[in-house]
Amino acid sequence: MLKMRLALLRARLREKGLDGLLVSLPANRRYLSGYAPDDAQWGESSGWLFISAYEAVLLTDFRYELTARAQAPLYRVAVHRRGLVNELKPLLEASRVRRLGFEPEAMLVEHYERLARELGPAVELVPVHNLTGPLRALKDKQELRYIKDSLGLMEQVLREVISDGVVGKTERELALSIVRAVEDAGAEGPAFAPIVASGPNGAEPHAEPGDRVIAAGEPVIFDVGARLAGYCSDISRTVVAGGLAEADDRFREVYATVRKAQLKAIAEIKPGLSGARADALGREVIAEAGYGKHFGHSLGHGVGLATHEAPSVGPNSSEVLRPGMVITVEPGIYLEGWGGVRLEEMVVITETGCQLLNKLDDFYELP
Amino acid sequence: MLKMRLALLRARLREKGLDGLLVSLPANRRYLSGYAPDDAQWGESSGWLFISAYEAVLLTDFRYELTARAQAPLYRVAVHRRGLVNELKPLLEASRVRRLGFEPEAMLVEHYERLARELGPAVELVPVHNLTGPLRALKDKQELRYIKDSLGLMEQVLREVISDGVVGKTERELALSIVRAVEDAGAEGPAFAPIVASGPNGAEPHAEPGDRVIAAGEPVIFDVGARLAGYCSDISRTVVAGGLAEADDRFREVYATVRKAQLKAIAEIKPGLSGARADALGREVIAEAGYGKHFGHSLGHGVGLATHEAPSVGPNSSEVLRPGMVITVEPGIYLEGWGGVRLEEMVVITETGCQLLNKLDDFYELP
Repeated sequence: MLKMRLALLRARLREKGLDGLLVSLPANRRYLSGYAPDDAQWGESSGWLFISAYEAVLLTDFRYELTARAQAPLYRVAVHRRGLVNELKPLLEASRVRRLGFEPEAMLVEHYERLARELGPAVELVPVHNLTGPLRALKDKQELRYIKDSLGLMEQVLREVISDGVVGKTERELALSIVRAVEDAGAEGPAFAPIVASGPNGAEPHAEPGDRVIAAGEPVIFDVGARLAGYCSDISRTVVAGGLAEADDRFREVYATVRKAQLKAIAEIKPGLSGARADALGREVIAEAGYGKHFGHSLGHGVGLATHEAPSVGPNSSEVLRPGMVITVEPGIYLEGWGGVRLEEMVVITETGCQLLNKLDDFYELP
Repeated sequence: MLKMRLALLRARLREKGLDGLLVSLPANRRYLSGYAPDDAQWGESSGWLFISAYEAVLLTDFRYELTARAQAPLYRVAVHRRGLVNELKPLLEASRVRRLGFEPEAMLVEHYERLARELGPAVELVPVHNLTGPLRALKDKQELRYIKDSLGLMEQVLREVISDGVVGKTERELALSIVRAVEDAGAEGPAFAPIVASGPNGAEPHAEPGDRVIAAGEPVIFDVGARLAGYCSDISRTVVAGGLAEADDRFREVYATVRKAQLKAIAEIKPGLSGARADALGREVIAEAGYGKHFGHSLGHGVGLATHEAPSVGPNSSEVLRPGMVITVEPGIYLEGWGGVRLEEMVVITETGCQLLNKLDDFYELP
């Protein structure tokens, strides 16, 4: 698997006329090498890959040496002691690299400037946006299995947490219980900090769970994901605290609109559509119902080793959907002062359309 | 507090001849505005600050709008809908900015290139490394109180987890119980993923907690931290599974050496020393004992809104220690195949020396 990925990447390097590539984006690094550690904090990389036609080197520091050797057997592990950039130079000189690609989406200006200074005019630094992204966007069978397992685990947890009841609990309490259940179920952890947004807090799509106590009748958005063997799941459900009988008319109308937009998109998404065309499938339904300006984010996004990855499925996306891509379909309506409804499923693009990956249908009882 | 910080930053802008500054590093953003959200993932900023002599703007997207308004009252919140960079241009034009500073340590090459293209030659983009860092390095009373509270909470948790016994448990199990206890104690969460490294795994300073079951007599390194009101704590202890009676001679020798290095450094660290001089205080003790090449990291680092921040306390650091700085003192010895010992305290630099912030002394019974 890793050999195939490296071969495909090297073919892309040849196409671009590059002698080598530096890989600094953690998800790309893991995809191409198996090396799992994330970066510790801004500007603290846990390692860069250097890939050329004949070489594959994982350059990391002393703290990660043993992990690197264990997880990236196809790579030679080189340990830098005086800073990553400083020790890259002899490596590149030995490899006679003249055109070196790097990832502008994962390279800090500070590091770029130091690299350029160290390497001098003998090495041309070439920004190559998105060389690994298109490979990652197309999932193989093993990746699809991990994603399904990650989603299945997440759905099971979400079902249990919601079934336990939410009235009288705080958002933060529920978010914590989700994280713990995800860890106990054997995932690496949550894919991202869970969103639990109740009542008016639901009007902000990325609200932080707070100490607000949830009252009966309020809409509550859950947006949660797990990470399993590196692969993320991402699912949103909106429920009425205390049960659907407590729902008011506005909730019913908003919810039905979002669900209709979602079902239409899932029914009509197929390979060959651009991200913008796919986005419009859901967006038009919401606009027709008069809520167009209350749906401020994209309809969806790719999911894999990162929660958000290619392809983007938004109004400005020209990326084309292809079989094997895994994306979310997550329309939402957000009304300041009242709250919000978001519903999110994951689908894999097939030869003729798309296939729903979610199995959880407990919370779709409303019209 | 925030007004004072903004005033100090603006004075620094004037010194540098800058009309404005973009702040993209999450910890700087929080320090200067109070706005707490972290970035979601690589390349997904939860907002940038734009600060000029008369303006303070927090530019974020729709998802964070309500949080921004609630947490950053000194700032005008501007919501971008077509990408952060795109909507910066009218803002800068209205402010007549000609020399615009940015943080090269927190700016991606991709964003920099888009900025330069959008703004054109009318605006000069000036990389200003570390404009906010020196302000953050000097803690005020309120910050010191948060750091002490964060450390006290973390010590209490660590004492309980270690007292519960570690033999027969896995590293991962212990790491999880630490995270949970930290959350239950009311922290925002762990400051970083806890390190629990047992037996030979301790030879790697940043080992990931795994499924290794801990046996009696093995050294176990704990390196843990909490985040409270944004402020981090960072503490390491090394214990012998099953109690000190189980320790072998090597452990006793290595431990005594590390502890001696730490005590010497704490006794002699004082304002006016460079980071390199402070580092040498501990490093020399370890080198004299013959373990010099087995202490591969720095003696310490600043701690505050980030786990690692200025000043750096390592062999190459020319930063000068000043009263009000909070740093760690964490010598270690790592022996491949056997394991490691690391001991880490936090101190605040005073007018005459440094003051220990830790209260936990349960695990210093050796030699």
